[in-house]
Amino acid sequence: MPSPAGAAANPPIFCKVLTSVRQNIQVDSWEINHHLKSLATNVLWSVNKYKLCGGKQAGVDVIEVNNGRLSFIVVPTRGMSVLKVEDGDVRLGWDSPVKEVVHPQFINLASRGGLGWLEGFNEWLVRCGLEWAGHPGHDKFRNHAGDEVEVDLTLHGKIGNIPASEVEVSIEAGSPPRIHIRGLVEERMFHGVQLSVWTDISTELGSNSFRIDDAVANDAPRAQEFQIIYHANFGPPLLEQGSRFVGAVEKVDSFNARAAENLTGYGEYAGPQPGCGEQVYCLKPLADADGRTEQLLHNAAGDRGVSLNFPVAQLPCLTLWKNLASPAEGYVTGIEPGTGFPYTRRIEREAGRVPKLAANEPRHFTIDFTIHSDQLSVQSAIGRVKNIQGRIKPEMAGDQPH
Amino acid sequence: MPSPAGAAANPPIFCKVLTSVRQNIQVDSWEINHHLKSLATNVLWSVNKYKLCGGKQAGVDVIEVNNGRLSFIVVPTRGMSVLKVEDGDVRLGWDSPVKEVVHPQFINLASRGGLGWLEGFNEWLVRCGLEWAGHPGHDKFRNHAGDEVEVDLTLHGKIGNIPASEVEVSIEAGSPPRIHIRGLVEERMFHGVQLSVWTDISTELGSNSFRIDDAVANDAPRAQEFQIIYHANFGPPLLEQGSRFVGAVEKVDSFNARAAENLTGYGEYAGPQPGCGEQVYCLKPLADADGRTEQLLHNAAGDRGVSLNFPVAQLPCLTLWKNLASPAEGYVTGIEPGTGFPYTRRIEREAGRVPKLAANEPRHFTIDFTIHSDQLSVQSAIGRVKNIQGRIKPEMAGDQPH
Amino acid sequence: MPSPAGAAANPPIFCKVLTSVRQNIQVDSWEINHHLKSLATNVLWSVNKYKLCGGKQAGVDVIEVNNGRLSFIVVPTRGMSVLKVEDGDVRLGWDSPVKEVVHPQFINLASRGGLGWLEGFNEWLVRCGLEWAGHPGHDKFRNHAGDEVEVDLTLHGKIGNIPASEVEVSIEAGSPPRIHIRGLVEERMFHGVQLSVWTDISTELGSNSFRIDDAVANDAPRAQEFQIIYHANFGPPLLEQGSRFVGAVEKVDSFNARAAENLTGYGEYAGPQPGCGEQVYCLKPLADADGRTEQLLHNAAGDRGVSLNFPVAQLPCLTLWKNLASPAEGYVTGIEPGTGFPYTRRIEREAGRVPKLAANEPRHFTIDFTIHSDQLSVQSAIGRVKNIQGRIKPEMAGDQPH
Repeated sequence: MPSPAGAAANPPIFCKVLTSVRQNIQVDSWEINHHLKSLATNVLWSVNKYKLCGGKQAGVDVIEVNNGRLSFIVVPTRGMSVLKVEDGDVRLGWDSPVKEVVHPQFINLASRGGLGWLEGFNEWLVRCGLEWAGHPGHDKFRNHAGDEVEVDLTLHGKIGNIPASEVEVSIEAGSPPRIHIRGLVEERMFHGVQLSVWTDISTELGSNSFRIDDAVANDAPRAQEFQIIYHANFGPPLLEQGSRFVGAVEKVDSFNARAAENLTGYGEYAGPQPGCGEQVYCLKPLADADGRTEQLLHNAAGDRGVSLNFPVAQLPCLTLWKNLASPAEGYVTGIEPGTGFPYTRRIEREAGRVPKLAANEPRHFTIDFTIHSDQLSVQSAIGRVKNIQGRIKPEMAGDQPH
Repeated sequence: MPSPAGAAANPPIFCKVLTSVRQNIQVDSWEINHHLKSLATNVLWSVNKYKLCGGKQAGVDVIEVNNGRLSFIVVPTRGMSVLKVEDGDVRLGWDSPVKEVVHPQFINLASRGGLGWLEGFNEWLVRCGLEWAGHPGHDKFRNHAGDEVEVDLTLHGKIGNIPASEVEVSIEAGSPPRIHIRGLVEERMFHGVQLSVWTDISTELGSNSFRIDDAVANDAPRAQEFQIIYHANFGPPLLEQGSRFVGAVEKVDSFNARAAENLTGYGEYAGPQPGCGEQVYCLKPLADADGRTEQLLHNAAGDRGVSLNFPVAQLPCLTLWKNLASPAEGYVTGIEPGTGFPYTRRIEREAGRVPKLAANEPRHFTIDFTIHSDQLSVQSAIGRVKNIQGRIKPEMAGDQPH
Repeated sequence: MPSPAGAAANPPIFCKVLTSVRQNIQVDSWEINHHLKSLATNVLWSVNKYKLCGGKQAGVDVIEVNNGRLSFIVVPTRGMSVLKVEDGDVRLGWDSPVKEVVHPQFINLASRGGLGWLEGFNEWLVRCGLEWAGHPGHDKFRNHAGDEVEVDLTLHGKIGNIPASEVEVSIEAGSPPRIHIRGLVEERMFHGVQLSVWTDISTELGSNSFRIDDAVANDAPRAQEFQIIYHANFGPPLLEQGSRFVGAVEKVDSFNARAAENLTGYGEYAGPQPGCGEQVYCLKPLADADGRTEQLLHNAAGDRGVSLNFPVAQLPCLTLWKNLASPAEGYVTGIEPGTGFPYTRRIEREAGRVPKLAANEPRHFTIDFTIHSDQLSVQSAIGRVKNIQGRIKPEMAGDQPH
């Protein structure tokens, strides 16, 4: 079994196991807050764990974290997805036609020609992966015994519809202290993969930022292909007519024909365009001297935004998804760092974008998110992006990469 | 979100929410009865909500309603289906080989070539729909973005295997008062339908009748195809050798070859015929001056029966299904009012029988059921059917309609 | 409904219903042990029922039985499978890459081309069956109405992923008394099978042996095909380099090409061979004058082992499965008595190995397992096998049987 990711620099001053296969623990309802004696602070923080009721969400576990400023909801039952994040009037999240937090028992990934995943899709952040992460498609590969195996892949893989096997809340000492929500999600089968991810989402008390810090592991004694895409989705208020995506990028390509029609306008957003299809772009993020990139989405006024900062070596691909549908159908844009693009795995493999994990080799993925609530903060982020971009002009490819 | 259907003419004198996604409410066990102080009556009525245990029915919610004479069981976990209705020695229901009230988590609709629905089929009344309602088949349609989508439809659609998102019990003032069980069942997906139905089954205290009063809604901002068939199924005691179906009908057609072999005998029933296949008829109900039709099933002696009364404009098609198998395999007949017949959607669309709902357009479906417990009551119902039929001779089509 | 199998010769001195569809009973947590007053004994026996937590095993029922020497864990939620058996340092069981006891709600049998079963496969003993038991494949058959039906069968059938409808613990009087865990698991559908199995696993207090005694029944009023294979799986310590399978056999055949390469060495085991595929053999067990056979697996030193003893008329086929993978991928051998071999049903039917059950005809399957913890006990078992084998030389077929 892998160890938790995001190994804290400092010792925990508090730790609570909420779910554990190993220890046979399941806590249905639980809360902790600023009254915790071992943590002296004026910040009104809290962590609240409960279950959802009714319909397709009956029995779903959620954990609400409030760091005193910013709050988010983690869904252990859905692969540690993050339902939404809020900081004042800024929300990271969107309004999907799917209203409930759907329990995986009601999702048949293979239904609708491999699109069953869409019946549960409404999170701000859902991981795609781990055995595969992209679009449905037929694939062939050699199994452990060298035999050729054929499989019909389903949209975005399984990890977002697997309940976490281990879930824990901990607080790491520091100034300020940092709240961590960690969860282990596993994809296992006989004669197949033994992939897992220890997810970690953490935030310092009173902060306007938080961090995803995952460790993917391969418990099999052989190298194993894997894929991960962080499908982060933004609707209003960050998305509106006049919003802009501003990222340090090396290359811009089109994933589909509608994107090819307006490649240079990839960073600009129109308002809802009912009946218009998706536009999807494949970006190669550009790194600074430390290997890190910054990508930003801000609103029309330029006074609200969010940035993503991550090492390009970990997540060399960034998919920009625009679904500028009517608000009732999901007016949303995705900013999706990944090990590859969401082409079906066969195509990704041909393009050399399906990494392998050696036996017991852990692979870390760390993304820092910062919420901007004023013009100054947005401008600073734009400045950082421009610094990384420097004089490098993004290559505009225009053709589909396969 | 749509509002509850069956909006009562009178104010409720009592209301209890048993399940609510919106309010995060789930009541596992609950009872109310004639001791309710706000309702003075001599009638020994009750409503009892509990969970089923064991096998594939573990965790299934059921609500038993007794109006002092007639009782029925609603199954919120299975799309507000009605398991059975009883009034003295009359039962509306049948003996399926499926004995448990199967939780949807154990149903794979796509299994067995799209016939997985049959692993849970044992209710008196199950709704077929809402995105599609008929037989499995391949279909193509244009999605929201104008792209052609292909999909393999499964038998009778999804609505009967979706747990209700909102469930409430209310009592409407009146002389006598009326008990309502309402539930909201939703079919939602990203890049797909946003259909829902607020179901309402209600009965007056002491009455031998009850009403289904559903409101189907389309929350999408575009017109959306939908289908609904009320799959009401009757075994003994109403079904036996010599039972008769007596309905006001304009046209009788055969759905399958076995029905074509005996088109004129569509209203007559033999006893169990082991090894004999299904006979299915497509009827066009005939309406009276008010637009309503009446359809009746009565036993051989003509002293027990049930009638259905509904507006033909709402439900212009009636499927008559005879499955005169041995008792152990399901000796049963279905009387199934619908927006169409159970051909696969591609065929129904070609025949012009797949209606569309405009954005936010609610569509009501109201069926009144009356149980007859003596010859007089059966004869009165036959008389009403004959009045509607008048001198109009049903057209006997004989050929399959496509 | 069928009656419990393994009808005890003696009256029960204790009986407890843990799960019942009929009585609407579900006991989540329960224990009984040697303090039971009606059973005077010095043996420290116990039965402990609880639920598992976390991941894909949340809500799974397990029953731990300890007869004072030998212990085993039964999983009602997974078709009364037996997770493992332990007697001192002997374990019946194996180390699958699947670590959790997966709730059927998370298994899609049809996924991965019909191999979804492998996502939950980690038990010592799992039954394959009942409608079909072998490999995936397309099949055609005549249904109740004489119509030809086509179906895509999934690996090893459904019974191992259906929760038990009735579960009871009872203690049968005797010297010594015998603990029984019984469970009813049903495969039912409309227009399909009505098969069930009352499973019974029992053990005498203080004993080193236990018995599986199942009764399969067909509740339909017509003859029905069925299949059952007892997929018993052994890893270390009984499986290691130098372990031997020693069985009374009439004929040895190869199921796959890798087995054909070394047919005569079917009884010998190498250590883990990473990257090597499965070898599967089809054996015809040989019976003694009483119609019983004995089959044995022992370790390299010949001082630990397990034997199976069963009537050949009940289970005329024995599949020997060798999966000598690395320990992390499932180093395991299966000794699998069945009504047939695990070829897909179409092939089994052609070979005359798919039995039928007449209406209401029960069929018993009884296997006695004995654990050997010293050389003398292993040698005695080898002696019994040799006695049955006598001078009969097993026929080595070499070709695949179809």
